[in-house]
Amino acid sequence: MFPSLVLSSPVVCIPCTYVYSTASTHRVRAPRRRVFPRLGVHNAVQQHTYSKENDDVLANSILSNGKVTKIAHQLLRSCVRADDVVVDLTCGRGTDTLLFLELVKADGLIVSLDIQQEALDITRRRIREEFCEHISDEAERKKIEERVYFARTCHSVFESVVDGIAEKKGKKKSETNEIEIGAITMNLGYLTGKDTDKSIVTRTRTTLEALDKASKLLRVGGLITICCYRGHEGGSEETDAVLDFVSRFPPEITVTKIDVLNRSGPVLLSCYRQR
Amino acid sequence: MFPSLVLSSPVVCIPCTYVYSTASTHRVRAPRRRVFPRLGVHNAVQQHTYSKENDDVLANSILSNGKVTKIAHQLLRSCVRADDVVVDLTCGRGTDTLLFLELVKADGLIVSLDIQQEALDITRRRIREEFCEHISDEAERKKIEERVYFARTCHSVFESVVDGIAEKKGKKKSETNEIEIGAITMNLGYLTGKDTDKSIVTRTRTTLEALDKASKLLRVGGLITICCYRGHEGGSEETDAVLDFVSRFPPEITVTKIDVLNRSGPVLLSCYRQR
Repeated sequence: MFPSLVLSSPVVCIPCTYVYSTASTHRVRAPRRRVFPRLGVHNAVQQHTYSKENDDVLANSILSNGKVTKIAHQLLRSCVRADDVVVDLTCGRGTDTLLFLELVKADGLIVSLDIQQEALDITRRRIREEFCEHISDEAERKKIEERVYFARTCHSVFESVVDGIAEKKGKKKSETNEIEIGAITMNLGYLTGKDTDKSIVTRTRTTLEALDKASKLLRVGGLITICCYRGHEGGSEETDAVLDFVSRFPPEITVTKIDVLNRSGPVLLSCYRQR
Repeated sequence: MFPSLVLSSPVVCIPCTYVYSTASTHRVRAPRRRVFPRLGVHNAVQQHTYSKENDDVLANSILSNGKVTKIAHQLLRSCVRADDVVVDLTCGRGTDTLLFLELVKADGLIVSLDIQQEALDITRRRIREEFCEHISDEAERKKIEERVYFARTCHSVFESVVDGIAEKKGKKKSETNEIEIGAITMNLGYLTGKDTDKSIVTRTRTTLEALDKASKLLRVGGLITICCYRGHEGGSEETDAVLDFVSRFPPEITVTKIDVLNRSGPVLLSCYRQR
């Protein structure tokens, strides 16, 4: 159904889309500690963490801190399997991709997209800094970095990118010859940060296109999370359009909206395929 | 601040309000199994359950079944302490009161209100059937039944009922001479069931009065859950009024709305005092 790409190496160009691995060597700023220093970084990458501690974070995130991005991560933790195909539709500063690196093992597949080179660079850098700094073996380090496939492209064409990489990796397809996806994350709006270009924002049309495809490729037990921001120009209209769109998802997908009413902040949509 | 009641026995009448314990002896229908049969019923009443299993239920409730009443219960589990004062503002068919009996020990206080005698009777019966049936010792059984204080009254005056009972029980008051409450639950609408009077519904004015008081008496770390139904006459207006009201709660209370968009059902509001 989708055009498949033949990837000859981790670095491959297709029209308007750059697919490459994270095998970069540059280091820009001091590494930041991840939340699991005691586990050892390599260990944290390999294991599928679903502990009591994580669960407490879910209740706590809903009750007290109201950070919907944190709620989204806790929900993803309870869905993502070690061998899943997972897609970060808008990698931004890399938060979701880093979570995927924690949850998905080498027999899975992580694809990370963004329209801006800067977002891909930031994410790639964070992987090096937060996942690889303690690993002395260069080959081992490279192996982790290369586990994320990046593509500089619009999220509306994500399925062709995923399809091409999945074919190369020999991932099993569904009966209808499609790649089933375990988790898809989407953070609408612009790339946050001090010196980023806030005029580059997600657009309603392409966002809905991506969501439509995402809902069709999701495996049973898989999850789409969407963080919608209203603050920027066009954000409110896009959020309303997305809300309207997911409200009409078929009943086999449970669409839940989580929203902190007495604070400004994003709205979280959780779309879970239950059958 | 609130008029206190002098309760001379578990069964006390105050104007328009009947406060009594659950020491009834009638049995109406076959007992139903609770979800924790293996723990032993008495044990289940005594322990504060916050296990991995319960946490899975929280993620699962949000993702798949979309039952906001279940989400509410999981959030309550992570807030309620064994020695808390807890209030079921509209006991209905007793679901929240039964949860409180599971979470709050003898040094706590459970108050259960409803405007309809039928709701109180149903709840009282369920306690007998689902918590006491396996206890052979009549005195032991009575001790559990008497742990819930019932009041047939409007939820808008709950604080005077709670104040009276708490004083009798010698519960510690706050510096401003008020009883601090750990959890308050509210299910709007009518009493569900086959032969119930659906014309008796919660009213916006008294609901907002109750909510205003609830928000002021909540201890730090305490939770109000509200399930809003829109289906019945006036339900939509009441829900909108409640949403508007809680949206203006001060920032120290995190107000989260959880709503399944592609199914009809109630909306859950979680109001958690974080400082």
